[in-house]
Amino acid sequence: MRRLKIFDATLRDGSHAINHQLTKEQIRDYCLAMDEAGMDAVIVGHGNGLGASSLQVGLSLLTDHEMLSTARKYLKRTKLGAYMIPGFGTIKDQLIPAIEDGVEIFKIGCHCTEADTTKAHIEYLAKNKKEVYGILMMYHMASAEKILEESRKIESYGAKGVILMDSAGASTMEMVKRTVALLCENLDIRVGFHAHNNLGIAVANMYVAIKEGASIADGTLAGFGAGAGNCQLEALIALLQKCDIRINANLYKMLDCVDNVMPAIMKKTASPDPISIVSGQAGVFSAFKTHVIHAAKFFGVDARDIFMEVGKRKAVGGQEDIIVEVAQELKYKKSKQKEDYQIEALL
Amino acid sequence: MRRLKIFDATLRDGSHAINHQLTKEQIRDYCLAMDEAGMDAVIVGHGNGLGASSLQVGLSLLTDHEMLSTARKYLKRTKLGAYMIPGFGTIKDQLIPAIEDGVEIFKIGCHCTEADTTKAHIEYLAKNKKEVYGILMMYHMASAEKILEESRKIESYGAKGVILMDSAGASTMEMVKRTVALLCENLDIRVGFHAHNNLGIAVANMYVAIKEGASIADGTLAGFGAGAGNCQLEALIALLQKCDIRINANLYKMLDCVDNVMPAIMKKTASPDPISIVSGQAGVFSAFKTHVIHAAKFFGVDARDIFMEVGKRKAVGGQEDIIVEVAQELKYKKSKQKEDYQIEALL
Repeated sequence: MRRLKIFDATLRDGSHAINHQLTKEQIRDYCLAMDEAGMDAVIVGHGNGLGASSLQVGLSLLTDHEMLSTARKYLKRTKLGAYMIPGFGTIKDQLIPAIEDGVEIFKIGCHCTEADTTKAHIEYLAKNKKEVYGILMMYHMASAEKILEESRKIESYGAKGVILMDSAGASTMEMVKRTVALLCENLDIRVGFHAHNNLGIAVANMYVAIKEGASIADGTLAGFGAGAGNCQLEALIALLQKCDIRINANLYKMLDCVDNVMPAIMKKTASPDPISIVSGQAGVFSAFKTHVIHAAKFFGVDARDIFMEVGKRKAVGGQEDIIVEVAQELKYKKSKQKEDYQIEALL
Repeated sequence: MRRLKIFDATLRDGSHAINHQLTKEQIRDYCLAMDEAGMDAVIVGHGNGLGASSLQVGLSLLTDHEMLSTARKYLKRTKLGAYMIPGFGTIKDQLIPAIEDGVEIFKIGCHCTEADTTKAHIEYLAKNKKEVYGILMMYHMASAEKILEESRKIESYGAKGVILMDSAGASTMEMVKRTVALLCENLDIRVGFHAHNNLGIAVANMYVAIKEGASIADGTLAGFGAGAGNCQLEALIALLQKCDIRINANLYKMLDCVDNVMPAIMKKTASPDPISIVSGQAGVFSAFKTHVIHAAKFFGVDARDIFMEVGKRKAVGGQEDIIVEVAQELKYKKSKQKEDYQIEALL
C-alpha cells in the first residue's frame, strides 16, 4: 500500500470563506506552521484557482504571483501546490508563471465528466516534470463507471493521480466506497479524495475513501473552506492514528496551528449551517447559494425549494440561469395553489 | 423494521456548553419550535441530569422543576423526557417529582459496565407505566460482548430500549457497527445511539448505528452539546432522507429553529476544537478538560500528553485524581530527560 499523502487545501478552499481576501501575513504564518508540522503539501491561491480572480467569482486581495511567491519563501520541507481549472486559466498566462514562482504540485480541475478539458494542461506539466494531478469536481453527479472512464483519461495524460471532489458535499459513504474502490482496483496512479461537510460526514467520507485505498487526503485545517467547510484534517488524522494509519505530519503541531494561527484567518467556525445542509442534500454546488437566496427573496419562495428543484435538474456551475427559471415556476405553482384553494372555497 | 425515533437532547446535553444556564424563555422558544416540527421527544434539564446541579459539576440557573414544568407547558405533540444518573438523583427526590411535572420518557444512565445501578430506577418507572430507557455511557470502554451482557440486564429490568452513549466521542465507525449489530441481533427491545463529535464523525457514527438496526437517534440540533458537540440532528436527517429513511419530524422546521431560535441559546458553534480532538483520541470523558488544563499549567506539561496517558489508564468519571498523578509523572519524566541530557553533555 502507498503511504498516505496529505494535501492541505486550507489556503485555497478556505479562500472561498473569506471572499479570497488572504493577506501575505496570513500566508506566511500558515506556511511557517505547516512546514514545521511536516505537512506533505500546501495548496495556495484563489478559491477557484489560478486566473480565477474576477468580478464574477470574486476578486482576490493578492495576485496569484503575490500569493505563491509569499508561500514559496516560507516552505522548506513542505511542497507548494496550486490549483487550476482550464478556462479560468491557461498554460501560458497561469501555469508557466506558477512554475516560475516555484510551484511543485499542480492540481488541474474539471467537471467530473469533462476530463478532456485537462489534457493539454496535464500533458504540459507532466512533460515538464511537474507533479500533476487531475481533479474531477462534483463527482457525485456521475456513476462510478463513468468516473473510472474519466479517470483513465487523466491517467493517460500523465497525471500522478486523480482526486475526486465532492464539491457539493452531497456524497454518502456508500457512494464514496463504491467509486473509490472501483478506481483503486483499475488504476495504477494514486486516487485521492476531497470532501465537503454539508451533510456532516466529510471526515467519515474521507476515512471511507482511505479504507478503500485512496492515498491522497485533500482537506483543510479546522475545516476552513467553501459552504459547510471541508474535511477537517486534524480530526481525520486523530481518527487515522487511532486506527494505526500513520502520516508524515505532526498532529500536535497542526493543533497548535489551529489554536494560534487560524483564529486570525477564519471569520467563523466551519460547520454545516441550514442552507449548506439543503444544498448538500440537493447535490448543488455551494457557489449557487447567493443566487438562490436572491431569487427566493425576489419571487417570494423558499430558497430550500429552489435548491431541491435545481438539484433534480442536475444543474452544474455556469447554469445559474436555472435558478431564476425554477424560482419563477415555484412562484407560479404557489399562486396557482392559492387560486385553486379560493375557487374550491367558493364552490 | 421499527420506525426510527428521534430523541432530541439539545436542552440537556447542550446545557454543558453553557454551564447549565438555560432560561425559561429559551426552553419555551425551543419547545414551541420542536413541537411544531413534530419532534418525537425533547429531553430537558441539567447536562448531567436530574439532581445533578451542584458546585462539583455546575449549578444550573433553574431547578429541575422549573425546567421541566416550563417545557411541559409548550409541548403538545412532542413527548417530554428527562435524564438521570442514579447517584446524582434518587427515585424519591427526583423521579417522583419529575413524573408529577409530566415527564413521559425517562433515560436512566450509568457507566457502561454498571447496569446494576439502574435496576431499581428502571423497574420503578416501568411498573408505573413510564417509557424508560437504559443508557450505557462511555460505551467505547467495553467490548461488544460486555455491552450486550449489560444491555440484557437493562432489558430484564423492563426498559423499552438501551441507548449507547459515545460520551468521549472516541468511537470509530467499525466499533459502532460491531456493537450495535450484536445488540440488534440479540435484544428484543430498541437499540439507540448517542454520539459526540470529537473525531468529527458523530453524524457518520449515528448513521452507521441506524444502518445496523438502531431505532433511536439521540442527538442535538446544531450539534449543541458537551465538548466537541453531538451528532447534529438536522445534518443526520438530511442524510437519512437522501438514503430514503423517513422520520416524523419536519426537516425545514428544524432548520428554521437552527436559524431563528438557536443563536440566542448557543454561545459558539459546536465543532471539534483541538483539545476535544485529543480527548476523543484518548477516549477520555470531555468533563476532564478543565482539570487537565489546570494540571498542565501547574506542572508545566502538555495537556495533550496528560489526556493520552489518562486514556491509557482507562480513567472514568470520578477518578479525576489520576490527572494530577499523571501530570506529576510527566513532569518528573521531563526533568529526568533534561538531567540525562545534561549528564551526557558533560561526559
